[in-house]
Amino acid sequence: MHFASDNSGPANPEILAALSAANTGYAMGYGADEEMAKVTSRIREIFEAPQAAVYLVATGTAANVLALSTLSQPWQTLFCTRQAHINVDECNGPEFYTGGAKLTLVSDADKMTPADLRQALEGEENRGVHGPQRGPVSITQVTEFGTVYTLDELRALCDVSKSYGLPVHLDGARFTNALVSLGCTPAEMTWKAGVDVVSFGGTKNGCMGVEAVIFFDPAKAQEFEYRRKRGAHLFSKHRYLSAQMLAYLTDDLWLRNASAANAKAARLAAGLRDAGAHFSHDPQANMIFAALPRATHQRLFDAGAVYHLWDGTLDGAAEEAVTARFVCDWSVGDDQIDAFLALL
Amino acid sequence: MHFASDNSGPANPEILAALSAANTGYAMGYGADEEMAKVTSRIREIFEAPQAAVYLVATGTAANVLALSTLSQPWQTLFCTRQAHINVDECNGPEFYTGGAKLTLVSDADKMTPADLRQALEGEENRGVHGPQRGPVSITQVTEFGTVYTLDELRALCDVSKSYGLPVHLDGARFTNALVSLGCTPAEMTWKAGVDVVSFGGTKNGCMGVEAVIFFDPAKAQEFEYRRKRGAHLFSKHRYLSAQMLAYLTDDLWLRNASAANAKAARLAAGLRDAGAHFSHDPQANMIFAALPRATHQRLFDAGAVYHLWDGTLDGAAEEAVTARFVCDWSVGDDQIDAFLALL
Amino acid sequence: MHFASDNSGPANPEILAALSAANTGYAMGYGADEEMAKVTSRIREIFEAPQAAVYLVATGTAANVLALSTLSQPWQTLFCTRQAHINVDECNGPEFYTGGAKLTLVSDADKMTPADLRQALEGEENRGVHGPQRGPVSITQVTEFGTVYTLDELRALCDVSKSYGLPVHLDGARFTNALVSLGCTPAEMTWKAGVDVVSFGGTKNGCMGVEAVIFFDPAKAQEFEYRRKRGAHLFSKHRYLSAQMLAYLTDDLWLRNASAANAKAARLAAGLRDAGAHFSHDPQANMIFAALPRATHQRLFDAGAVYHLWDGTLDGAAEEAVTARFVCDWSVGDDQIDAFLALL
Amino acid sequence: MHFASDNSGPANPEILAALSAANTGYAMGYGADEEMAKVTSRIREIFEAPQAAVYLVATGTAANVLALSTLSQPWQTLFCTRQAHINVDECNGPEFYTGGAKLTLVSDADKMTPADLRQALEGEENRGVHGPQRGPVSITQVTEFGTVYTLDELRALCDVSKSYGLPVHLDGARFTNALVSLGCTPAEMTWKAGVDVVSFGGTKNGCMGVEAVIFFDPAKAQEFEYRRKRGAHLFSKHRYLSAQMLAYLTDDLWLRNASAANAKAARLAAGLRDAGAHFSHDPQANMIFAALPRATHQRLFDAGAVYHLWDGTLDGAAEEAVTARFVCDWSVGDDQIDAFLALL
Repeated sequence: MHFASDNSGPANPEILAALSAANTGYAMGYGADEEMAKVTSRIREIFEAPQAAVYLVATGTAANVLALSTLSQPWQTLFCTRQAHINVDECNGPEFYTGGAKLTLVSDADKMTPADLRQALEGEENRGVHGPQRGPVSITQVTEFGTVYTLDELRALCDVSKSYGLPVHLDGARFTNALVSLGCTPAEMTWKAGVDVVSFGGTKNGCMGVEAVIFFDPAKAQEFEYRRKRGAHLFSKHRYLSAQMLAYLTDDLWLRNASAANAKAARLAAGLRDAGAHFSHDPQANMIFAALPRATHQRLFDAGAVYHLWDGTLDGAAEEAVTARFVCDWSVGDDQIDAFLALL
Repeated sequence: MHFASDNSGPANPEILAALSAANTGYAMGYGADEEMAKVTSRIREIFEAPQAAVYLVATGTAANVLALSTLSQPWQTLFCTRQAHINVDECNGPEFYTGGAKLTLVSDADKMTPADLRQALEGEENRGVHGPQRGPVSITQVTEFGTVYTLDELRALCDVSKSYGLPVHLDGARFTNALVSLGCTPAEMTWKAGVDVVSFGGTKNGCMGVEAVIFFDPAKAQEFEYRRKRGAHLFSKHRYLSAQMLAYLTDDLWLRNASAANAKAARLAAGLRDAGAHFSHDPQANMIFAALPRATHQRLFDAGAVYHLWDGTLDGAAEEAVTARFVCDWSVGDDQIDAFLALL
Repeated sequence: MHFASDNSGPANPEILAALSAANTGYAMGYGADEEMAKVTSRIREIFEAPQAAVYLVATGTAANVLALSTLSQPWQTLFCTRQAHINVDECNGPEFYTGGAKLTLVSDADKMTPADLRQALEGEENRGVHGPQRGPVSITQVTEFGTVYTLDELRALCDVSKSYGLPVHLDGARFTNALVSLGCTPAEMTWKAGVDVVSFGGTKNGCMGVEAVIFFDPAKAQEFEYRRKRGAHLFSKHRYLSAQMLAYLTDDLWLRNASAANAKAARLAAGLRDAGAHFSHDPQANMIFAALPRATHQRLFDAGAVYHLWDGTLDGAAEEAVTARFVCDWSVGDDQIDAFLALL
Repeated sequence: MHFASDNSGPANPEILAALSAANTGYAMGYGADEEMAKVTSRIREIFEAPQAAVYLVATGTAANVLALSTLSQPWQTLFCTRQAHINVDECNGPEFYTGGAKLTLVSDADKMTPADLRQALEGEENRGVHGPQRGPVSITQVTEFGTVYTLDELRALCDVSKSYGLPVHLDGARFTNALVSLGCTPAEMTWKAGVDVVSFGGTKNGCMGVEAVIFFDPAKAQEFEYRRKRGAHLFSKHRYLSAQMLAYLTDDLWLRNASAANAKAARLAAGLRDAGAHFSHDPQANMIFAALPRATHQRLFDAGAVYHLWDGTLDGAAEEAVTARFVCDWSVGDDQIDAFLALL
């Protein structure tokens, strides 16, 4: 009954098998391994983007901060939601990597709307050299609240960004969970909608630790390489990143993992709904934000369930509802869900 | 016959076995995994340093730049040799992470001497606020030229540093190769000599990608944690770093790997010496810098040998000697050395 | 009829006279001039702070970014209002100088309240190393909307800050305008209320270009000096900064200038009120935010009045009110105010 | 008998007169003052560069670090001599403003030669992403040792730089002293030789505190403006910078000041030579590096002469020669030189 995070479960055994398979003989370091060439080909194929530049790093934060610093200038401000990982969970990594850019918080909600974005962009009105200049827009898909932007919503946000001449970054730490939720193609969810650069997550979806950064226009690729190296994110034994990503994209493992996680989350959500839980956001991928009475949380924790309370603690009136976050990864078993729902 | 680098061979199978063993059930992320507690204990034990703060990162550059930025201020200059990895192989990573500190190059040789260091320190004389202030001294052990500082040499350098009140960092990307070469204890090669912080390498010595940063005085440990996080070097699925390091330090794998690499390099060096090669530096660990005629290099390359020419190319007089770098890792087989020496 | 800014009028002739007087013979550079010793003494006397460390720079932004970077760490977030100069008018200077710290916007109003501040501080809850850590609180006095924090308000904000262990910075670009408005002592408006560091403005109050940074606790003074030098803000011919500040603090020039500016603004405000203008904020120093019909603005501009529309343009319904900002500096003549009010 | 520095004498009275003249009425701030338009025109005229972008700052360090950061990327290394002001006298300001670029020290001598530069550039050979990339070349004219590059020398250095595709920056803190020494035009000493950006000094040549940064190709001018603002170097009351620079360029004041300083230095040098002083560098502008016996220094200091010992102290054998630096500014009187030489 572990629903704390999609980074706390094990990696898919196919990932580890690929590591073992790659662990033979000599390989060129620093991204010149043969597996990396295959990763690039495979990602270009999947994204229908034959010119895309593709890079691997080991953490989602690295993918985000390196992508954003390549897209921006230190005197700009980046646009994201208040709850965006780049705002609340990277300890000022974006400010560090960009050399001191700012983040403008577009919305407190799970999703920014085109109207929110336009208002925030207008708020950074032309103050000449006095204020920060407008920089890239970063959209998180799956959102930090477990919802998924529709293709129309993505397109509309990209349209607003483009009307200001601004590049769009997609924080896709849970990219595949969104993809299978929407049932669209990677191209539709990215460059066809207007996205310029993607942080394409593997870690939260069954890998050990690997993320791809994909530039659909390779013009700034060389700059990214310098930034990755001086950020200390270029692996000497790079084949082990490549092997993970290649296995992830082989035999639909990425899709199988995300589909499993989403399906389990859907079962869990249905059970919670039946138990009377209130959902602050509609669970559309593998995360659920559901409110239950404190007494219920206490009982579940006592029985060994693991998950995070989101907007409160166990201190307070027993009957008062407190929202919790439940996350399913690829590995959660039906038995665990059954056990949890039985308890509930 | 692959002697290009100690990052091009495979990881030791014991490392991969440990990854598989760790790949079960749920684990807390971000360094709160149970394996990490064991890593800390084991490193404290090995280093006879019960108070040491221990952190894991995935690249040697990350270990160096995070350690050095924690030890320094942006208005300081760091002292190292010209060939130090932090100077020539990190694409200004130290300058980036420190917020703009400088490197003062103490010596062009493999090792800095106490006299070199003192001269460089005096060269950064007191210019009030105008010049950079003196910052940490960084020593590379094994040196970039395959030699090893003796304990006396290390102590003397640390003594100079301490006489200026400066902390000492040891870049130990090849820490264990030096250790088995000297036949001393980790404590003797570090804090007993006066070293304050160590980049303790695993990657070049048979791991997939893991390095420990060890602070003997934990006073700045909290700062290191913020720096690691905002540098995007804190792994969510941290257990896979821990598992590597734990396996590395179990059953003497670290010592076995380094001993094997050094022994193979000694055999290779002996054969090169017999073949008349000139050594620009005495090979004391697992790296050899040996000069051979161009014609010989050409013949070896044609036969499939892989290594780097260090100070020239194949263009030129056939009989002219060109220095090459040969590196042995833990995995190189006697058969490969035999084949190479037979060719030679 | 020029009310655009308190940086567009001339410097007080006493300032220029002091420059000329200082322009004789040789003087030590870089802050070692004799005038600077007098400046330090005078500021310590005025602030009843015999231990204070005092530094001069030439711009208000320099004072702010150097002060704040000395008080903070790159992984922290600073607390200020949305309209604070450090947020909207320094082109990410604070982010640059701090090495990538963040600003948390406490309030959209002119003043932050203790409740606002506490809520913002709680909003940066303990996320371990993931989120930014809490850093200094920066309060602007006179506020960007022309209001003045009472001593009680200042003390309450400082108390909240101190209860979180955070230092307090006062952006006093218009320090003296606030001081004469409150009728209190400099000590009461700063360290007695709990302020740790002040940007003490001269430029907007009749100087050519000089600001003092005052640290009541000199512990971090040496760090400030390094930061000022590497920020390129240490003047070689420093005597010309000193001479300005010394003249400013001689014969009550600072108080006379601010009193004049505030008095003229009060006359202007009274006239605007009589003419039916609506005040979005109570004008308590030398700035007025007053709404007039577009047609009135048009008429005033046509007659040669100079000031900034604040929240709109001349495009729109003629009878609709648009807020404008009027600023009086020390030099504005009664004749100008008379002429403007006659027009109105 | 004050020869300590060309920043310790008074400003030329014409500069102060210009400040007073400018101190009337209202002026637009932040560089939009009318005087600035005249400054730009005048500099374009003097430099025969009708497209040049021109900016003013108050310190020479600001001019250098803003110019260099605009020309470079954080992953590059800049080329200069060891004694360059940007290396030894800016407290890592260039590293700070560039976001962590490095300086490669081309030569320990007063001037770099084309061979030195080429060797240094080759030393930063292509290491892919591992090492820093080659960035701008910065040449100091007058050199830090009082010598002056000939036009042929400048052209040769620029030719080498251009052959690597690198921009050239001229640190002209003593630009005019070099100009009158060479008897050439500003265009000849800059863009006609291949210089791209100049720090055009005023402060050391009789101004209070003003330097121009001149971009002959205005393509990066907008970026410079953002960097100046966030560096806190954009003056609100900008007219006082403009007025200084305009007066400096009016009635040949810049040339008169530099000619006077050079002439006085020539007289001083002749007297020193007659007294048997040894010159470590040929004094070609307004700085002299001359060795005298310790006993002589002691005698001169005792008699009130002010100058800096350069490579030693008064402690040691009385008859041993110690090199001292003597600098003449525009204001030094013949009576002072007479008095000094009489003493000598």
